[in-house]
Amino acid sequence: MIGIFDSGVGGMTVARAIEQFLPDHPICYLGDIARSPYGTKSSRTISAYSIENTQFLINQGAEIVVIACNSASSVATDQLRQKFNIPIIEVISPAVQQALKETRSGRIGVIGTRATIRSNVYERQILSKEPEFKVFSKTCPLLVPLVEEGWLNKRETKMILRRYLHGLKNKQIDTLVLGCTHYPLLKHLIQPRIGKKIKLIDSSIATAQYLKRYFEKGKQLQTEKISATKKKESTFFVTDLTQSVQQVAEKIFQRPLKLERI
Amino acid sequence: MIGIFDSGVGGMTVARAIEQFLPDHPICYLGDIARSPYGTKSSRTISAYSIENTQFLINQGAEIVVIACNSASSVATDQLRQKFNIPIIEVISPAVQQALKETRSGRIGVIGTRATIRSNVYERQILSKEPEFKVFSKTCPLLVPLVEEGWLNKRETKMILRRYLHGLKNKQIDTLVLGCTHYPLLKHLIQPRIGKKIKLIDSSIATAQYLKRYFEKGKQLQTEKISATKKKESTFFVTDLTQSVQQVAEKIFQRPLKLERI
Repeated sequence: MIGIFDSGVGGMTVARAIEQFLPDHPICYLGDIARSPYGTKSSRTISAYSIENTQFLINQGAEIVVIACNSASSVATDQLRQKFNIPIIEVISPAVQQALKETRSGRIGVIGTRATIRSNVYERQILSKEPEFKVFSKTCPLLVPLVEEGWLNKRETKMILRRYLHGLKNKQIDTLVLGCTHYPLLKHLIQPRIGKKIKLIDSSIATAQYLKRYFEKGKQLQTEKISATKKKESTFFVTDLTQSVQQVAEKIFQRPLKLERI
Repeated sequence: MIGIFDSGVGGMTVARAIEQFLPDHPICYLGDIARSPYGTKSSRTISAYSIENTQFLINQGAEIVVIACNSASSVATDQLRQKFNIPIIEVISPAVQQALKETRSGRIGVIGTRATIRSNVYERQILSKEPEFKVFSKTCPLLVPLVEEGWLNKRETKMILRRYLHGLKNKQIDTLVLGCTHYPLLKHLIQPRIGKKIKLIDSSIATAQYLKRYFEKGKQLQTEKISATKKKESTFFVTDLTQSVQQVAEKIFQRPLKLERI
């Protein structure tokens, strides 16, 4: 079983992509809504929450855990790998790999929460592989509340995006990493504002593809184990449940979803 | 000692007002930043957090606790009063009293978070005293992130406010309750958009005045006890600490502030 956690509903874009790329694998999702968002909080707090979430998923039977949150991936991955004896997949490396594959000019933009951008993890990972490349980062703290509010087509959202992206536009990037699992829901607004020719890297799809290759490479026994047994149902846990959470979750999955409050 | 808690830094507007109206009383403040915001969460979760916060303040020596958060005041006051044997002051009744005093037309607007507006507490309290009055409520979920982002004068903030207030403007209210402790920081933008003649009710000031009258009425022995002993220092605890938290806190208090992480 694939365990997936996020601070809230944003990580469901990752869960949804994993469901599409790996339809035979049951998912156990945990959205820590009661303490969301993570992106505005300190590294110490995000790490403590990530450890609790991972433990919960392991208790539920997860044999591999995906950190479906850029903020938690940025600051808690090393600690989780030290603490837990199962594979921990994060969303940064797959997005970086994808960005390195797509860029022609070597000028890459990254947008994310305060925690993600403060950690500087995208720049470090990109430059460790391509020291000559240039990385331009921008924190976009209001995008998460705008998505959670469901303002996906409002004029104010477009203006705020224009303000956030303005500086990056002048940097002549050819690739932009959507460094937060909420941002794919704003792709249709980001693309025309950053420029049609700029390649957008969606970390949810990159991570699902990465996970698929990971299983195919046989680094994991999970695939055989799971395909040998009868496919279990996927389950979705949340630490808090409100109407808006239910709505955004079903918007992402485009079907009714049973969210279980724990 | 006066204990004060909030989900984050918004409640510091209340702490600041209490400090100004009751300068002889030491304050013990708790900002639950690690789990903020509360306004988007369920009543059950907000109540559970409020109980923990109150217990913490009592352990620190608080003899009276102020719930400096409209969301928590709306949904957790009864439970706190049942559970704890000290006076629990909330921010709703003082704002309601003030609104009833100010209104001429009996048409009152209320803006707040999802949790506050969903609880319907303002309307219930106002109508229980003045059944003929009309109350018009509006949830404004993006105002908290905009304040915490420090966008206090940005064009986008003005546009979002205009959108939120538009419906209320047509209701011919003469009084508007700022039903969230973050909103006083946007007073200068709210006043021109709702209309110069509309009376704004700031729950932080209303609560501080209420508390002052409460002490003066001698319902509490605290006043004498405190004035008899040497004034202790006020302390400010937070469950998480980032640079933005420190900045907003000092903006509210207009002086350097020592925030202690717990």
